[in-house]
Amino acid sequence: MKRFGPALVVAAGAALATAALAADPAPAAKPLSTADIIASARPADWRRLDPANTLYLELASGRIVIELSRFYAPAHVAAIRKMAEAHYWDGLAINRLQDNFVAQWGDPDNVRPVQKALPDLKLPLPPEFTRAIAKDLPFTALPDADGWASKTGFTDGMAAAQTGNEQWLVHCYGAIGVGRDNEADSGHGNELYVVIGQSPRQLDGNVAVVGKIWRGMELLASLPRGTDGGLGLYATPGQRVPIKALRLASSVPEGERTNLEVLRDDTPLFARFVESRRNRTEDWYLHKAGHIDVCNINVPVRDVK
Amino acid sequence: MKRFGPALVVAAGAALATAALAADPAPAAKPLSTADIIASARPADWRRLDPANTLYLELASGRIVIELSRFYAPAHVAAIRKMAEAHYWDGLAINRLQDNFVAQWGDPDNVRPVQKALPDLKLPLPPEFTRAIAKDLPFTALPDADGWASKTGFTDGMAAAQTGNEQWLVHCYGAIGVGRDNEADSGHGNELYVVIGQSPRQLDGNVAVVGKIWRGMELLASLPRGTDGGLGLYATPGQRVPIKALRLASSVPEGERTNLEVLRDDTPLFARFVESRRNRTEDWYLHKAGHIDVCNINVPVRDVK
Repeated sequence: MKRFGPALVVAAGAALATAALAADPAPAAKPLSTADIIASARPADWRRLDPANTLYLELASGRIVIELSRFYAPAHVAAIRKMAEAHYWDGLAINRLQDNFVAQWGDPDNVRPVQKALPDLKLPLPPEFTRAIAKDLPFTALPDADGWASKTGFTDGMAAAQTGNEQWLVHCYGAIGVGRDNEADSGHGNELYVVIGQSPRQLDGNVAVVGKIWRGMELLASLPRGTDGGLGLYATPGQRVPIKALRLASSVPEGERTNLEVLRDDTPLFARFVESRRNRTEDWYLHKAGHIDVCNINVPVRDVK
Repeated sequence: MKRFGPALVVAAGAALATAALAADPAPAAKPLSTADIIASARPADWRRLDPANTLYLELASGRIVIELSRFYAPAHVAAIRKMAEAHYWDGLAINRLQDNFVAQWGDPDNVRPVQKALPDLKLPLPPEFTRAIAKDLPFTALPDADGWASKTGFTDGMAAAQTGNEQWLVHCYGAIGVGRDNEADSGHGNELYVVIGQSPRQLDGNVAVVGKIWRGMELLASLPRGTDGGLGLYATPGQRVPIKALRLASSVPEGERTNLEVLRDDTPLFARFVESRRNRTEDWYLHKAGHIDVCNINVPVRDVK
């Protein structure tokens, strides 16, 4: 008599990769499960991460794969790419772990001022907290109501939202934001945090969100929590978690890369995937929610060669 | 130049306890911050946990304090209380850690069948997934819209919701649910899980939620993730995290108890506290959300003697 409690289908890379070329299954009497739908995806339903927009955060415990957005906060993204090329973060550390909130890394002791490390970087960076809605700015809208924004949806599989004429990346689990002081332009891109708990949507529109972690979140979310200042800062430098390296995937030899594909959000298959999360078809669910929050949709990722 | 990124005021016990007797501060030109509001709370704004409804989950890393609900899932709560009195979980283990979802403990190998351990327990338990709205069932409603329910709010500081004539405890961070198989009455109360990530509201109405962890969530949320079966089960028994004891606080000598108070949700002060989370008053926030989700309100807790 095993009771496993609630099941959450996680799109595990290896298992999915083998199923990716399968044809759409024949129509069934019962709605397809999330796993069935993902297994029926065709190659064109997936988007391969571009190594030039992908960062590897290397810890002793393993590699974390970050995608920088192609569409939001371009000045911040360019600065982060330059810092990675300059090995800015190598030897620095994760210095903040606040439970149910964020993990953060950077230069808390100010031993590597950004402008000194990158004399050519133009500072301050503009406050890229939102963007104007535009034709060339993708947005796959969800029909589901949201309390924080007029609409929610996705850009490149990253949770996004719209209100009025503005569009932005949303603080869901795995979103990467740029820490700043009180002034809007005080973030230099060297202090980065990632959401590890309940989506802190109050941060939306207050910081530049620059991308998302697609692999390795568990390595950050399982780190010991810091105890200092009510902010989860590690109380002593010795508690910090060293960063072996933070590099662009394109600077890593091809044989050492982690090649990932993310399910595209602009396909009919993605809409079916979302519906399978809105109204779960697995037998375990006796009550169907009839709703989904953008932060409850974990867009599938898989390994590829 | 320190950049700490977003700040989250956490109601840390010690700091608050010293401020708890302060009188309401004089009206200020600027709205009070969350910290100011909590510091201005009077003794009657707090509710002390009842040792008869409080569980201590003791791990090698420390103590986790769970409150069993006074209002929901009474048959499950009674069964759990009996199991704790019988030391049912002592020597069992946390056997499931699924990233961004749940931590779970119980009897995965079926070495302690519940009915054998507690011959007097009447099984099966009724499916106590929701309750009928009633006058004696407290509910402090939020005005904020929610996509999953008609209304959200609080009962004893635990997140709750209403739709139609039904009311239930909501799956927010720290909520404790009873694992079950596919059948509605297949949960015996011995398999318990706690939410460690983005609120999995699709579980609402599908399981009996029996209480909430008020202290020690970081001890569970920072455990290594399991890798088995896509469910976060630990792959080998050796990876499981032993439970030293799971006891009712009332069975623990008074001098060894962790005495906590939770901010009451049925006071004017609580409404001000919520407003300070809906529209942050700290200088860091350049954009105010104008909204709050029930799962983004971390009800303050403090230590008392």
